[in-house]
Amino acid sequence: MDLATLIGMIGAFGVVLAAIFIGGDITQFIDVPSMLIVIGGGLAATLVRFPLAGLMGAFATGGGVAFKHKKVEPRDVIEKVSELADVVRKSGPLGLEGVTVDDPILAKGVQYIADGYEPSFIKDSMERERDLFIERLKEGKRVFKALGDAAPAFGMIGTLVGLVQMLANMDDPAAIGPSMAVALLTTLYGALVSNVICIPICDKLDAKLDTEDLNQTLIIDGIMQIRENKSPALIREMLIAYLPESQRAAFQEAA
Amino acid sequence: MDLATLIGMIGAFGVVLAAIFIGGDITQFIDVPSMLIVIGGGLAATLVRFPLAGLMGAFATGGGVAFKHKKVEPRDVIEKVSELADVVRKSGPLGLEGVTVDDPILAKGVQYIADGYEPSFIKDSMERERDLFIERLKEGKRVFKALGDAAPAFGMIGTLVGLVQMLANMDDPAAIGPSMAVALLTTLYGALVSNVICIPICDKLDAKLDTEDLNQTLIIDGIMQIRENKSPALIREMLIAYLPESQRAAFQEAA
Amino acid sequence: MDLATLIGMIGAFGVVLAAIFIGGDITQFIDVPSMLIVIGGGLAATLVRFPLAGLMGAFATGGGVAFKHKKVEPRDVIEKVSELADVVRKSGPLGLEGVTVDDPILAKGVQYIADGYEPSFIKDSMERERDLFIERLKEGKRVFKALGDAAPAFGMIGTLVGLVQMLANMDDPAAIGPSMAVALLTTLYGALVSNVICIPICDKLDAKLDTEDLNQTLIIDGIMQIRENKSPALIREMLIAYLPESQRAAFQEAA
Amino acid sequence: MDLATLIGMIGAFGVVLAAIFIGGDITQFIDVPSMLIVIGGGLAATLVRFPLAGLMGAFATGGGVAFKHKKVEPRDVIEKVSELADVVRKSGPLGLEGVTVDDPILAKGVQYIADGYEPSFIKDSMERERDLFIERLKEGKRVFKALGDAAPAFGMIGTLVGLVQMLANMDDPAAIGPSMAVALLTTLYGALVSNVICIPICDKLDAKLDTEDLNQTLIIDGIMQIRENKSPALIREMLIAYLPESQRAAFQEAA
Amino acid sequence: MDLATLIGMIGAFGVVLAAIFIGGDITQFIDVPSMLIVIGGGLAATLVRFPLAGLMGAFATGGGVAFKHKKVEPRDVIEKVSELADVVRKSGPLGLEGVTVDDPILAKGVQYIADGYEPSFIKDSMERERDLFIERLKEGKRVFKALGDAAPAFGMIGTLVGLVQMLANMDDPAAIGPSMAVALLTTLYGALVSNVICIPICDKLDAKLDTEDLNQTLIIDGIMQIRENKSPALIREMLIAYLPESQRAAFQEAA
Repeated sequence: MDLATLIGMIGAFGVVLAAIFIGGDITQFIDVPSMLIVIGGGLAATLVRFPLAGLMGAFATGGGVAFKHKKVEPRDVIEKVSELADVVRKSGPLGLEGVTVDDPILAKGVQYIADGYEPSFIKDSMERERDLFIERLKEGKRVFKALGDAAPAFGMIGTLVGLVQMLANMDDPAAIGPSMAVALLTTLYGALVSNVICIPICDKLDAKLDTEDLNQTLIIDGIMQIRENKSPALIREMLIAYLPESQRAAFQEAA
Repeated sequence: MDLATLIGMIGAFGVVLAAIFIGGDITQFIDVPSMLIVIGGGLAATLVRFPLAGLMGAFATGGGVAFKHKKVEPRDVIEKVSELADVVRKSGPLGLEGVTVDDPILAKGVQYIADGYEPSFIKDSMERERDLFIERLKEGKRVFKALGDAAPAFGMIGTLVGLVQMLANMDDPAAIGPSMAVALLTTLYGALVSNVICIPICDKLDAKLDTEDLNQTLIIDGIMQIRENKSPALIREMLIAYLPESQRAAFQEAA
Repeated sequence: MDLATLIGMIGAFGVVLAAIFIGGDITQFIDVPSMLIVIGGGLAATLVRFPLAGLMGAFATGGGVAFKHKKVEPRDVIEKVSELADVVRKSGPLGLEGVTVDDPILAKGVQYIADGYEPSFIKDSMERERDLFIERLKEGKRVFKALGDAAPAFGMIGTLVGLVQMLANMDDPAAIGPSMAVALLTTLYGALVSNVICIPICDKLDAKLDTEDLNQTLIIDGIMQIRENKSPALIREMLIAYLPESQRAAFQEAA
Repeated sequence: MDLATLIGMIGAFGVVLAAIFIGGDITQFIDVPSMLIVIGGGLAATLVRFPLAGLMGAFATGGGVAFKHKKVEPRDVIEKVSELADVVRKSGPLGLEGVTVDDPILAKGVQYIADGYEPSFIKDSMERERDLFIERLKEGKRVFKALGDAAPAFGMIGTLVGLVQMLANMDDPAAIGPSMAVALLTTLYGALVSNVICIPICDKLDAKLDTEDLNQTLIIDGIMQIRENKSPALIREMLIAYLPESQRAAFQEAA
Repeated sequence: MDLATLIGMIGAFGVVLAAIFIGGDITQFIDVPSMLIVIGGGLAATLVRFPLAGLMGAFATGGGVAFKHKKVEPRDVIEKVSELADVVRKSGPLGLEGVTVDDPILAKGVQYIADGYEPSFIKDSMERERDLFIERLKEGKRVFKALGDAAPAFGMIGTLVGLVQMLANMDDPAAIGPSMAVALLTTLYGALVSNVICIPICDKLDAKLDTEDLNQTLIIDGIMQIRENKSPALIREMLIAYLPESQRAAFQEAA
């Protein structure tokens, strides 16, 4: 679980809900047609921009990564890889059969080695999956960005619709306030969807893109080294050289 | 048909119409002079920016591509091209006469081969059409972008005109509400035109630009290979090498 | 005449005027002090940004080009140049004396050849004029951009002045509506000046920059070829090679 | 004096003042606490962004250049430099003692030559001053940009403070209008400070940066040529080659 | 202490507080739920974008640097370094033991030399710390930027919540004003947090990034020179060459 995403989002909705409860009645803030305009309209306008299949996939991947993706420390990857290299050194590729690996990408690479695939096949296959994963993250970022733009726009459209209806029927002055309250709800929903959900997730995916690219490249390079039977110490040395200056520093400090 | 565009646009208008019907009376939302200001004014301001002939063409092409253009999978293009290469191998260029090809650009290339044109002529001629098509798509994108900027501006201008008229004649308090409702309609129209039609189509054309450029280049290269009588297997290999990493991956996975 | 600019601008003002007339009384929309704030203030703020002499020149050139400049088709330039080359071939440079040339830049080049100037002088002189013309167009674009930014800002300033005056004197409730109507006029004027005049002209000048640069370079190169007595067919060939891919295609298609 | 800056700024304030006087009473528009919020707050927020000493210097330099700096025509610089070269040719460096030079930078260079300093010292010293001057102009531009952003923000903050005070004390309905008028004053002040003073000066400094860099480089190069006793004609030729194409053209045209 | 940050921020809050006190009652401007929405919501939305640990660190580092970091003049660094080189020249590395150095980074370097570490170790170790410090400053800048975007958004969300509550309960007309005053408070808080705290600190960190990078690189290079026992004069010469043109000028001027 990515705790920051969860805590942040719960916190943001929490303070808004707290303000609503302090002010009185939450039913004043629930209006299904208003939700339909903002969420339905926003999704529909996003749909125009993307191919149908891609939208769902990007949505799912993006959401999943933002919430569930555990941050993998490059340091842990390097430790794990040199551990695995040690196993191969001692008991050959078949020794990997008994090892349990948590990271699904590393696990796949280990399986390839245990199954005795050619290095070029392993490299192609793993790089292909990394590229597809990165591509889906990017698409997910674009989808959340588009939705974060469309939701406030439909919030404003909904408020305009509500205002026109209210202004056209002003016979009962007592109804003006509540009508206008309902009209404003779409603007509120749009602001919430955009500022609490879409923009932060879009930024988070952007930050994850770089670290994921680095981590998976590290894993692929490590697996290739293991496959070629390099010594654990050498692998460790080489992988550290891949890290950007600042991360390498952090790594060496801990070493 | 590009279903995503159609579903998205119908959905977006649908939720707004639903909100209008739930609130009561759709006639409150129809005002022909307001439509004239937003659509007429928006188109006129767009017209200043572009040459007259180009505007209509770009509008038509852009709209057509956004709604009707079927997405062609590079994979299908490659399969079809190697199929055609097989025909040529077996029964010579004249064998292509009996083949039906759906894609109009591929069909044109096949016709060129069957008619025995020189390779350099075929290449020049097909690249020229690809460039013109891409150029029209870009112009279409610029037109929808300009209209998407101009429509909300004229929506605001229309609302200001309506407000001035309302404020200058406040003798009858009962008329204030309905007058203001009408004044707000132009802002609503402007927001709808921009957010439901123009910006999404502009984004869609942007996304189609890349895939169209790739697909048509693929087709041209495939046609050139067929014309030079290369073997289907070789053509397949070469075309795959043209694809960007992520698409090549998807292709090989399926193979 | 550039019909698109004229039709577009008349159309945009037309729909706004129509909306005003339908709503009643145009005198409600005319307020000389409000016009002074928006146009005078906008021009004054633009003046701070530019040197005095340059402003007037850029204003005149920009406006002139946006409205009057006839679009010259590269194809026509090339045809005309090869025609002139033919004349020189047949009857020598002096044969150009009797030829009438519409385009003023081409006419100047023809005059230089007829007068027997050195190639290097002709080239320097014509390139210098092209550069000055392009420079003035760019300056014109910057001036209209600055005015398009300043006009709505002064529209808002005018509305704030009007609102403060209205709010400070609310003794007569009947005067509130008309006072606010007048206050809103500056915002309306600012939006019109910016969206109907300045931004579209700025965009148009931007589009003309590229085509003008290409056309005048074409003319200069053509004149140089004629001066050096190249054959019309050769000149035609060389000039076509100057065109960007898409325009070259259009040209060859017509050939 | 830079007349455009002065005329523009007086004109912009003039039309606003005219609108205020036509509407009645200027005392309605003067509110010292509101001025404090916009100008004091804006300056304070700008102060956070810059080191204290730099702020004052940049403010002074920027303001001085925008208002007082006379535009120096490159042509005049070149003429003056070749004149001075002629003097040195005829009567040696000491002949410069009797010459009066208006431009302070050129005058300093002339003094260096008359005093017989080494070329490398003169070059270093003059380039250092040019760099410091350009650096101060850039800093000035950043300060006016920051103030132009902060002033409207504090205008809005001031209006919000005023609105809250007004809304919390609505016992006397007659006071609502005037209170709101005062609340709006900060927004008006912010818009004026930003649109009439800060943004135009920022743009002007941006335009001056390029011409100043060119002019001072011209002067330094000219002084170096004089110091090395080059002939006036040669110096003239070399300096013209430094100018950008468009200015060189203008120069040669006049020659 | 960075006086500009402190004076600026106190000044900005000061003018706003002054305006509040002049208008009457500060209790009207304190509303704890409103503060919770803006600050809690803003922090929560920022939290979604960043990893939890990084957020706190970046926040602390950024805040600390903006307020406390004393600007180190490159000139003082160079003087101090050549002083230290002189000590090493005269009494060997051990002579440094008795020297007190204020700057913590320089002090660390001096300690390394006194302790007789290898040059390559000293260089690696100090560069690593510089990179980590710069990285934390950049992260701090991003955090303040994100908070500066989120705070006004939550200000608007809070105002919408307040407006909906007020409009839904309009039975008591006397309560409308105060309710709306409270609703506006979140917008005011959001504008203050963003314009007085976040944006200026973000800009300040941006400015400090460059000078810190330069200063620490200067110190590291100086320490390396001292370690290699270079003469103070030579070190001075080399370090000056590192400075950008404008600073070198200022330095030489003073020399």
